[in-house]
Amino acid sequence: MSDDRSRSLAKGSAAPGPVPEGVIRLYSMRFCPFAQRTRLVLCAKGISHEVININLKNKPDWFFEKNPFGLVPVLETSKGQLIYESPITCEYLDEAFPGKKLMPSDPYERALQKMLLEQFSKLTSIVFKHVVAVKEGQDTTALKAEIAEKLGKFEELTAVVLDTFERFKCTETLQHVLRILSKRNTVFFGGDSISMLDYMMWPWFERLEPFQLKDSLSHTPKLQRWMEAMKEDPAVKATMTDPQIYKDYLQLYLKNSPEACDYGL
Amino acid sequence: MSDDRSRSLAKGSAAPGPVPEGVIRLYSMRFCPFAQRTRLVLCAKGISHEVININLKNKPDWFFEKNPFGLVPVLETSKGQLIYESPITCEYLDEAFPGKKLMPSDPYERALQKMLLEQFSKLTSIVFKHVVAVKEGQDTTALKAEIAEKLGKFEELTAVVLDTFERFKCTETLQHVLRILSKRNTVFFGGDSISMLDYMMWPWFERLEPFQLKDSLSHTPKLQRWMEAMKEDPAVKATMTDPQIYKDYLQLYLKNSPEACDYGL
Repeated sequence: MSDDRSRSLAKGSAAPGPVPEGVIRLYSMRFCPFAQRTRLVLCAKGISHEVININLKNKPDWFFEKNPFGLVPVLETSKGQLIYESPITCEYLDEAFPGKKLMPSDPYERALQKMLLEQFSKLTSIVFKHVVAVKEGQDTTALKAEIAEKLGKFEELTAVVLDTFERFKCTETLQHVLRILSKRNTVFFGGDSISMLDYMMWPWFERLEPFQLKDSLSHTPKLQRWMEAMKEDPAVKATMTDPQIYKDYLQLYLKNSPEACDYGL
Repeated sequence: MSDDRSRSLAKGSAAPGPVPEGVIRLYSMRFCPFAQRTRLVLCAKGISHEVININLKNKPDWFFEKNPFGLVPVLETSKGQLIYESPITCEYLDEAFPGKKLMPSDPYERALQKMLLEQFSKLTSIVFKHVVAVKEGQDTTALKAEIAEKLGKFEELTAVVLDTFERFKCTETLQHVLRILSKRNTVFFGGDSISMLDYMMWPWFERLEPFQLKDSLSHTPKLQRWMEAMKEDPAVKATMTDPQIYKDYLQLYLKNSPEACDYGL
C-alpha cells in the first residue's frame, strides 16, 4: 500500500487499479497545503487509507478522469466514488467515518466554521494567484489592485499572507478571523479542542517559516499560542514538513521543475 | 412582521430591533438570486420567518454590523447569531429546523451536491463580474480572457450564462453539471425529488427569460423537463418574479438607481 512518502506518478504512468475494499485512496502531493488538509483529517480520525502522489508539474492523463480540474486532493472509494475540493473531502471523511467528529454538532457553530473558512479561502486563493504571477515573472500590479478591490482597504496587522517575496499588510478578511479568535478567548478557533477549522487553516500557518514570515506573528500572542498548541497535535506532527525541505521544494516548484514534487525522496 | 414584499431599508434608516423569539429574520433583496436561495429553503421547510429588505444601492450603515461584506442574504436569530453566504444560510436552515431534509443523508450524495454547487458557483461569480463590468461601461476583454483562462476552452452548448448583452458559448463547468444530470437520468439534480442543489441553481434559471436566453434551452430537453418540474414546486412558485418586472428592475439596477430594489411596490 502506497504511503505519504511514495514517489509521485507522472505523465505516461499506468493508472492505478480499483481501490481495495476497506480502504480509501487519497490522490495527493507531499507539499500541497490543500491536500494536507485531507491528510490531517485522515490522520486525526485514524482512517485506513492509501496515498497516491501526483506529479503536479507533469500530470498523468488518467488523473483528469479522477478530477476534471486536475487538482489534488481527490478521494476515491472502493465503489469508485470520487470526491474533490479540499473542504468537501474533509467534511465527507468526517461524516462517512466513525470516531471523533471534527465538525461541531450545533448548526450555528457549524455555520460559523464554514463562514470563517469561506473568508480564509478568499485569502488563500488570491495569494496563490499572486505567487503564481510572481513565479511567471508577470507584472503583479493588476493583481494587487484586484486584491485591494476584493478585500477592501488594507490595514496594519500581522501578515499571514503567503507572499514569498514581500509582506502585505493584512486584509480585513484576516482581521475578522483574528477578531473571532480573540473574542472567543479559546485556544482553538472552534473552542477548547481542535476542530475542522483549525485543520483547514493550519497548512498555511505551517508554511510561515519557509516563507520567512514567522516573525510576522510577533505581535499576536494568541495566534502564537494557537500555533504552539497545534504543533502538539498528533495529526499536525504526522503531516509536518521540515521548513528547509519546503524551501528547497519551493525553489524547484517556482522553476516548474518536474522534480519538485519528489524533492527529498 | 415584515414580509418578502416590504419596502427596503436604506441609508439613514433605524436599525431593526432584536429578532422576536420563535422567528428567524432574513435580510434580503427582492430580486437577488442569492437571497432567493434562502427564501426558497425557508419556504420549502415552512420556517416561521420575517424578511427585512435592504436597499443594496443605498445601504444602511448598520447593515455592515450584520455582515461586514454588506451582502444579502443574512440570517439573524433571536439569540443575535448572524449567518451569511447563501449556501451556508441554506445548510444552516436545513440542519437547525425540523421538516423535510433538503440535503441527502448519504455522505457521498452530500459531497456530490457540494461539488456541483462549487462548480456552479464559479460560473455565477464570473458572470456576475461580467454583468457589473458591462454595467459600468468597462472594456470586458480582460474579463473574458479571465473567464477563458479559468474555465478552459469554451464549447458549443446551451448557454446558461447570465450575460444580458450577448451569449457566451457554454463552459466546461456547465457541461460537467449537465453531464451529471444526463447520466443520472432523474428529473432533479439530486434524484427523483427536489433537493438542495435544485434550489441553489434555480434562481439563475428563473432569470433566463428576462435575460432573453430562454431559447438557449431548445436543445436540452432534460433541462427543459427540469425547469417545468421546478415551476410546479410550491417554494419556487412562492418566490417567482414576473419576467417583465425583473427586466424593468434590471434597467434601474444597471443605472445604479436607488429605486431599483423597490421597483413595482
